[in-house]
Amino acid sequence: MVFMRFRPQLIISSFSRSPKPRTPPAATLAAAARRRHTTAVASSMAAPSEDALRRALAERQAAVDAQAEAVRALKAAGGASKAKVDAAVEALKALKIEAGAAARRLQQSVGSGGGAAREEMRQAVVNTLERKLFYIPSFKIYRGVAGLYDYGPPGCRVKANVLAFWRQHFVLEENMLEVDCPCVTPEIVLKASGHVEKFTDLMVKDEKTGTCYRADHLLKDFCKEKLEKDLTLPQEKADEFKRVLAILDDLSAEELGAKIKEYGIVAPDTKNPLSDPYPFNLMFQTSIGPTGLSVGYMRPETAQGIFVNFKDLYYYNGQKLPFAAAQIGQAFRNEISPRQGLLRVREFTLAEIEHFVDPEDKSHPKFADVADLEFLMFPRELQLSGDSAKLMKLGEAVSKGTVNNETLGYFIGRVYLFLTRLGIDKDRLRFRQHLPNEMAHYAADCWDAEIECSYGWIECVGIADRSAYDLKAHSEKSGVPLVAHEKFSKPREVEKLVIVPSKKDLGLSFKGNQKMVVEALEAMNEKEALEMKAALESKGETNFKVCTLGKDVVITKKMVSISMEKKMEHQRTFTPSVIEPSFGIGRIIYCLFEHSFYTRPSKSEEEQLNVFRFPPLVAPIKCTVFPLVKNQEFDAAAKVIAKALTAAGISHIIDTTAISIGRRYARTDEIGVPFAVTVDSATSVTIRERDSKEQVRVDINEVSSVVRQLTEGQSTWADVSATYPSHVGPQGDQE
Amino acid sequence: MVFMRFRPQLIISSFSRSPKPRTPPAATLAAAARRRHTTAVASSMAAPSEDALRRALAERQAAVDAQAEAVRALKAAGGASKAKVDAAVEALKALKIEAGAAARRLQQSVGSGGGAAREEMRQAVVNTLERKLFYIPSFKIYRGVAGLYDYGPPGCRVKANVLAFWRQHFVLEENMLEVDCPCVTPEIVLKASGHVEKFTDLMVKDEKTGTCYRADHLLKDFCKEKLEKDLTLPQEKADEFKRVLAILDDLSAEELGAKIKEYGIVAPDTKNPLSDPYPFNLMFQTSIGPTGLSVGYMRPETAQGIFVNFKDLYYYNGQKLPFAAAQIGQAFRNEISPRQGLLRVREFTLAEIEHFVDPEDKSHPKFADVADLEFLMFPRELQLSGDSAKLMKLGEAVSKGTVNNETLGYFIGRVYLFLTRLGIDKDRLRFRQHLPNEMAHYAADCWDAEIECSYGWIECVGIADRSAYDLKAHSEKSGVPLVAHEKFSKPREVEKLVIVPSKKDLGLSFKGNQKMVVEALEAMNEKEALEMKAALESKGETNFKVCTLGKDVVITKKMVSISMEKKMEHQRTFTPSVIEPSFGIGRIIYCLFEHSFYTRPSKSEEEQLNVFRFPPLVAPIKCTVFPLVKNQEFDAAAKVIAKALTAAGISHIIDTTAISIGRRYARTDEIGVPFAVTVDSATSVTIRERDSKEQVRVDINEVSSVVRQLTEGQSTWADVSATYPSHVGPQGDQE
Repeated sequence: MVFMRFRPQLIISSFSRSPKPRTPPAATLAAAARRRHTTAVASSMAAPSEDALRRALAERQAAVDAQAEAVRALKAAGGASKAKVDAAVEALKALKIEAGAAARRLQQSVGSGGGAAREEMRQAVVNTLERKLFYIPSFKIYRGVAGLYDYGPPGCRVKANVLAFWRQHFVLEENMLEVDCPCVTPEIVLKASGHVEKFTDLMVKDEKTGTCYRADHLLKDFCKEKLEKDLTLPQEKADEFKRVLAILDDLSAEELGAKIKEYGIVAPDTKNPLSDPYPFNLMFQTSIGPTGLSVGYMRPETAQGIFVNFKDLYYYNGQKLPFAAAQIGQAFRNEISPRQGLLRVREFTLAEIEHFVDPEDKSHPKFADVADLEFLMFPRELQLSGDSAKLMKLGEAVSKGTVNNETLGYFIGRVYLFLTRLGIDKDRLRFRQHLPNEMAHYAADCWDAEIECSYGWIECVGIADRSAYDLKAHSEKSGVPLVAHEKFSKPREVEKLVIVPSKKDLGLSFKGNQKMVVEALEAMNEKEALEMKAALESKGETNFKVCTLGKDVVITKKMVSISMEKKMEHQRTFTPSVIEPSFGIGRIIYCLFEHSFYTRPSKSEEEQLNVFRFPPLVAPIKCTVFPLVKNQEFDAAAKVIAKALTAAGISHIIDTTAISIGRRYARTDEIGVPFAVTVDSATSVTIRERDSKEQVRVDINEVSSVVRQLTEGQSTWADVSATYPSHVGPQGDQE
Repeated sequence: MVFMRFRPQLIISSFSRSPKPRTPPAATLAAAARRRHTTAVASSMAAPSEDALRRALAERQAAVDAQAEAVRALKAAGGASKAKVDAAVEALKALKIEAGAAARRLQQSVGSGGGAAREEMRQAVVNTLERKLFYIPSFKIYRGVAGLYDYGPPGCRVKANVLAFWRQHFVLEENMLEVDCPCVTPEIVLKASGHVEKFTDLMVKDEKTGTCYRADHLLKDFCKEKLEKDLTLPQEKADEFKRVLAILDDLSAEELGAKIKEYGIVAPDTKNPLSDPYPFNLMFQTSIGPTGLSVGYMRPETAQGIFVNFKDLYYYNGQKLPFAAAQIGQAFRNEISPRQGLLRVREFTLAEIEHFVDPEDKSHPKFADVADLEFLMFPRELQLSGDSAKLMKLGEAVSKGTVNNETLGYFIGRVYLFLTRLGIDKDRLRFRQHLPNEMAHYAADCWDAEIECSYGWIECVGIADRSAYDLKAHSEKSGVPLVAHEKFSKPREVEKLVIVPSKKDLGLSFKGNQKMVVEALEAMNEKEALEMKAALESKGETNFKVCTLGKDVVITKKMVSISMEKKMEHQRTFTPSVIEPSFGIGRIIYCLFEHSFYTRPSKSEEEQLNVFRFPPLVAPIKCTVFPLVKNQEFDAAAKVIAKALTAAGISHIIDTTAISIGRRYARTDEIGVPFAVTVDSATSVTIRERDSKEQVRVDINEVSSVVRQLTEGQSTWADVSATYPSHVGPQGDQE
């Protein structure tokens, strides 16, 4: 007999969704908490030419060794002509050069080469971001805290713009019910969701200093270092390290510990021995109220706040499905040792949608709006066959069943539109389907929007069909049914299982235990009940496990009547499925920074200037106003323009510094301001577009409406450029 | 000798600003943590007529007692005529009626009467707010957590609108530098700010159950209950309880404990005895990282994140003052026992501005823009003389010195405009100046925007000139100078203190301690140095306390040379003053809900309908679209309108339920939707304004632009009403 409705065996496979009950083998599951880190690594490791390069190097090295031996033998034997020895030495030198070249090719392939270019590009972006205060390591004057960052002024505006567009694109366009729940969350909620038990990473401690490390990080670093640096690694060893990297997420604490021992991995800072791996819960714990008795956590995601409100929201929506609720807010994860800069932080902004839908009808009325979109998709078949992502039409992906259902497909399409409109490069964006072992057993399907940046392919949005799991978990724990109803237009005949225990007969046999036996009988599901019915009919009695008694009892035919009866039903009651798009806002913004960044030579070609090509939608400031030279007339005109821009709700700055207009343009390009107004007369001004550096001349009274139309997307630069006279003036020359 | 630069003796006098160093007596200061609660109470208690009413009642009661005694005597003595006894009894009855009336008048005055009306009004608002999901007690299905609330869909939109307007009105219009810092904060930051030591409330525990109470709450409740319920309270007792209420915030732990003992106050739930009061820190504590060694707190305010970034922000601003930084974000306070619903919560959104200014020049270039504003101000003189707030012109308040400086005045004016444009009733808004004992010793001036609601006058915005305190505190703790510079146009001659210890002579006398003595000498301030100079010149030697040695040493004349020298300086270095407007967003929103709420009879006059008169700026939804009857043509037209509204960025809902248009209007009024579009033809529709219930007829293609202009404030309903034909149609009749 099964009384447990589900066993929460959880994995953390994404930044956005954490403890997921799934099928055994249980031992490998907690380890999967770390999968989120290695997908990118594993796929970049699978570059096709690397094995060949490694074999080639090994052959060259073997040839060098053989020739060196030959030279030694020649010299040792004596009597060989000098010419012969010289020829052998020359051959050895040539072989060494070949081996060196092979080593360099391998080096480049395994990352330290391409990695260096990526690293350089990242440094250029990050330097600009830090210098212009897009972000700031938090509490810097106190030497900071790993994994905590501030958004400085331009970063903060980019974030506000991204969130405003998110609200417009999702909440407003889809009429979602937005809620705003606290970060402080009582323990019971996160027990129901499974976070208290399973939201963990495996940790090892330096046995002498107590410094903590993520166990999988150390093993990953060790294997990567071996593969990248040790070019004489035998093929079989290289294969082993690659296999370890690929299965890193599936290793149990014991398996991870065994590997760490086997490879002799020690604490990286001190070389001290390490403890065995053990789970560390990633939630920040606190205490609610003054007694110290009420445990609370800072929420690790915003979704739970929506689930616990399902009942109210369903009524608010007129008891109609489908509907979606949404939430933007801070989430917290006490990472063991945060790395990867802005991509893995201890506090971050999530924007989550929970779309509640009838599990029997996951069609979407607006799917046609996105069906023709075509973009990079990476279904699991392509991943398993070692192929890369392919351009696919969303409509076909759904109709062929690659994507499980229309609603999931609709959100994939909407996420694609959202990201590309922000300025994410569509060629560096793919939708990757979860592999079967990444997904919870109850999940119908799951796709991640991954964006490629200097750290590899980064999961930025998770889009999961989580079926009824979350609502059921909270129904069970709270005792409040979180269900929906469908009223039938006319009553339907249904077959229903009817179990009628005979209390009299049960009482005679079981006395004080009668109540437990009755409850256990009534709790049987259809399959169990029909099996018992068959057994009773054939054998007259059967063994029956009563969990609350902890033992089997014998049930005879007269103790219970089991039948299937026909009934008329007027409505059906069911737990809705939830489709959850979950956005890591900080990650999206960081990738957007990388995708928007480029450099171009200054006019004098003496230096490279940095530019962020943000679309007006996300640009931190839409417009800069420059009086060409310092004089009262121009300053007054600049103020008139600024006032009009403010009234139109357009963020702008006035730059009256005395430096050249070219340098002022450069400064404004560096924070991605799309338009610059240069005041060179009291009646008309020039407007310059950032990327083309083109300028047009516009009447002073029209400036704010032209800029407003450009920034709100009602007109393009091409329109403006066609409407207003172009300008090639002295300020252009100074650039 | 004094090495301590300042002694942080702190009070918490506002929701928005917490630990403030101030002058002794220290014992009463921590107690002032609770002042924030009682201002409203104390001022409502000071109603002028109450004393007179209490005296009148006592006189009437005495008359009743005397007459009763007379009647008893008359009867006991016997022999009095029936007419005489009857007359005496009648007189007694009349006196009783008079006494009853006096009791009712007193009752009304002390609150239970007026309080009942307020309570009823609050219940009507709160019921509507909860029913329409403006807010929801958090984690309701798990029976909630005191002091935690969710914003449901309409509440969440109101909040987003308020924050968007805040950004427009403050950040954009003033070109402020907005930042976004984490909630998780390391201990050192909050040690520097004083929160770790002093951000406390005094708590008592039920000695048997361990239940915690705020000590001042219990004493306040006891005194209020006595004053309100015990109408026979002798005048001197009533005076004492009032005095206790007035000084509640200034009571030390010992004094509070003594009062609790004296009045025999016990735990309200169990009647058990209570512990002595002791301080409880209101910050949620947690641990950063896995070692458990790094203490962190959830920030109690957002301001500290700005202060620690001052240096970077100052450079970002081109090293120019003044400039302002701003932050919107969550703050956390682990209240001992939250009361007052949405006004005192454990997690809330703050919006804070830190305006950095040269302490020698607090003028504001835009002060003229607000100087003519006139509104209710409540300077400390009026409070101390028992008067109420008065209408004052802001310009005069600043020029007369009532408000300390132009910049502070400017922000008071901007806050007034912000709140009234949101829909706060200007007659229920006042700016109250802090009394001397409420303010930190370093603060130049401090005003609270208080809004009157059913809980009394509630502090919703604090506007404080905090001088250089915060930057200095973090400079000291971090060792990073948080200062600004003013470059002089030409160098200035200044007198400077020069202290030159003679290391040779000090070394001879103090050997290994020489270094500590040298450092102590060099660290003297001007006053100390000049005193030493005088002592050395008159006596040749002097005692000098060296803290690092823990003792006095004797300094002789030849050990140190002290002089004032004239120097040319090219710039001055100073710590900027900070003027801090700090907004409790949740409180503002709650007061806005109360001020916006009214009821009006339904058409049939059978029931009262609820309306929120939100201005379009804050309305959760700007527009509802109703197809008059269910048919394909109207539904299609509704969809066309909805699409145009979405494109214009106007939040809206379509209501196609089959109920009467009147009921649908009522439903939309109840969440404060300002405009309703009724589709009664395929070419033109009616637009109805919520409060006037007027309707105009508008072409279907113009709907979105008309509604957009109305909601963005480019046109008023009067404009629209004058432009378009008015409509009195069947749907109007159904209302």
